[in-house]
Amino acid sequence: MPQKEIVVGIDIGGTTTVIGLIDAEGTILATSHFATEAFPDIAAYIREMARQITTLLLPFSTEYSMKGIGIGAPNGNFYHGTIEHAPNLVWKGIIPLAAMVNKIMDTPVLVTNDANAAALGEMIFGGAKGMKNFIEITIGTGLGSGFVANGALIYGHHGLAGELGHTIAIRNGRACTCGRFGCLEAYVSKRGMIQTFTEMMTSNTDEIKESDAMDLQSITPAMITEMAMNGNAIALKIFDETGKILGLTLADSVCYTEPEAIFIFGGIAMAGDLLLNPIRHYMETNLHHIYRGKIAVLPSSLPNNSAAILGAAALIWNQI
Amino acid sequence: MPQKEIVVGIDIGGTTTVIGLIDAEGTILATSHFATEAFPDIAAYIREMARQITTLLLPFSTEYSMKGIGIGAPNGNFYHGTIEHAPNLVWKGIIPLAAMVNKIMDTPVLVTNDANAAALGEMIFGGAKGMKNFIEITIGTGLGSGFVANGALIYGHHGLAGELGHTIAIRNGRACTCGRFGCLEAYVSKRGMIQTFTEMMTSNTDEIKESDAMDLQSITPAMITEMAMNGNAIALKIFDETGKILGLTLADSVCYTEPEAIFIFGGIAMAGDLLLNPIRHYMETNLHHIYRGKIAVLPSSLPNNSAAILGAAALIWNQI
Repeated sequence: MPQKEIVVGIDIGGTTTVIGLIDAEGTILATSHFATEAFPDIAAYIREMARQITTLLLPFSTEYSMKGIGIGAPNGNFYHGTIEHAPNLVWKGIIPLAAMVNKIMDTPVLVTNDANAAALGEMIFGGAKGMKNFIEITIGTGLGSGFVANGALIYGHHGLAGELGHTIAIRNGRACTCGRFGCLEAYVSKRGMIQTFTEMMTSNTDEIKESDAMDLQSITPAMITEMAMNGNAIALKIFDETGKILGLTLADSVCYTEPEAIFIFGGIAMAGDLLLNPIRHYMETNLHHIYRGKIAVLPSSLPNNSAAILGAAALIWNQI
Repeated sequence: MPQKEIVVGIDIGGTTTVIGLIDAEGTILATSHFATEAFPDIAAYIREMARQITTLLLPFSTEYSMKGIGIGAPNGNFYHGTIEHAPNLVWKGIIPLAAMVNKIMDTPVLVTNDANAAALGEMIFGGAKGMKNFIEITIGTGLGSGFVANGALIYGHHGLAGELGHTIAIRNGRACTCGRFGCLEAYVSKRGMIQTFTEMMTSNTDEIKESDAMDLQSITPAMITEMAMNGNAIALKIFDETGKILGLTLADSVCYTEPEAIFIFGGIAMAGDLLLNPIRHYMETNLHHIYRGKIAVLPSSLPNNSAAILGAAALIWNQI
């Protein structure tokens, strides 16, 4: 019987599925990946996943025993082990993912969504190690969040907790993809920042002149970050506005769970203090006095390119 | 050795301190009370409390053993067992209440604030029995809240979680007692409702005429409730406005912890559906679609006049 234990962490993305073998310290021993879109049939998809897991595990089978499989997926539901109506995946409706994988692999399988996985990854392997109360914010195409209180992730009654991106930041504000108006993620997300950029450029003729060679359609958050790093006033204003809207929301979030720290994760968070400093400033100056000076806003310490599989693996390591 | 167990539940109010003996089913076996204000010296106050507890317990000492003392107090801190800078109490600064009571009574002593105690009371003895995820809202002079997730009350990192009353309902809105603007409790509280009434009366000359005999200074929420029950249009509008502001906030709260139910407690909640129906309507129509039809808004089932001591006792019963 091998003494060391290993966990399989899987990140299901709309385009690519990544599989990793992760030990108790968060070391990634091996990875593989394949095109999610190549398998519109879910049964065939899971067969391919199982085949790759088995291949990956083979060289480690004498030294390690496998504890289980953790999966992070869009709209992943922890309680049911399902993916439910994920708009960016090829499979529609409710997919009983954990049950299907468990049937082939005969090992515990847990599923959750990307933001919850990031929160667990932060808690088990990242900057939140040892913390009992913290918030993880993931900024990508949208804005996700995971709330940890009393040392446990808050899943909610049906597994639908932690949707900070859909709290209202500006009443009757921008249209959100959810059909409502003014949601936080309509402002604080890749999509939101690009819209802020477009609005600023089209509402200010001086600034259009200043950058009339730029194609507004092809702007990316990475380009805005680079412009800001080079001191571009509009780009800096976009980070200030984005950080302000998130900071004001977080001043409210603190009233709910009083976290020790708030971690910011995702591509846009790579802008570092360009984004974190405005968040800190506006959160702090708007906090109720009992919280002032008590809440750290920190960059996630998970590596951006492997956070998803680490988070997925943390689902299993967290169950010990 | 007596087989049955009993808990002492204590509610410290600015005016009165109430002591109750409460069994595991929430039956109140005996109560007593005394004037908090009569003891500006905290040591003398605790001696009086201990004296009354001992007297209360005497007739039950052969049949019951005492498990501990739970105390609900304004600004009570669970982690430290302290009362911290409570504006409405005679003792200033930080009072090491649990340690002082424990020294005299030699039994476990736990302290929390009023809203957290109400949430625990709801969970152990009230409508939230068996629920793992719910929110308790207490509407009194201010607005308090207790969030339960994964079956446990969320205390936060320093014991300061659950201040929904100080989330911003209307950005740059009404002045709040905390020094900021637009806090939920500036609108949804006894004080807030009276201000809404005053604003409506003074901004609408027709309605002033309609009720010109009324003294605006002496209005109470109970009077507004009675007017609304008699079909008074202004009073009904106040309940609609108050319920709207709370309902919109709760539509955001649901995104945090996805509760099974939200309980409304306190004097104003006695207005029943006059208040609950607008809350339900505005919350439901503003919810993100994944939550629609899933969240019950219910009146607290704790008896209004003994909820505080039941909640305080629940602190101890919850530790089993």
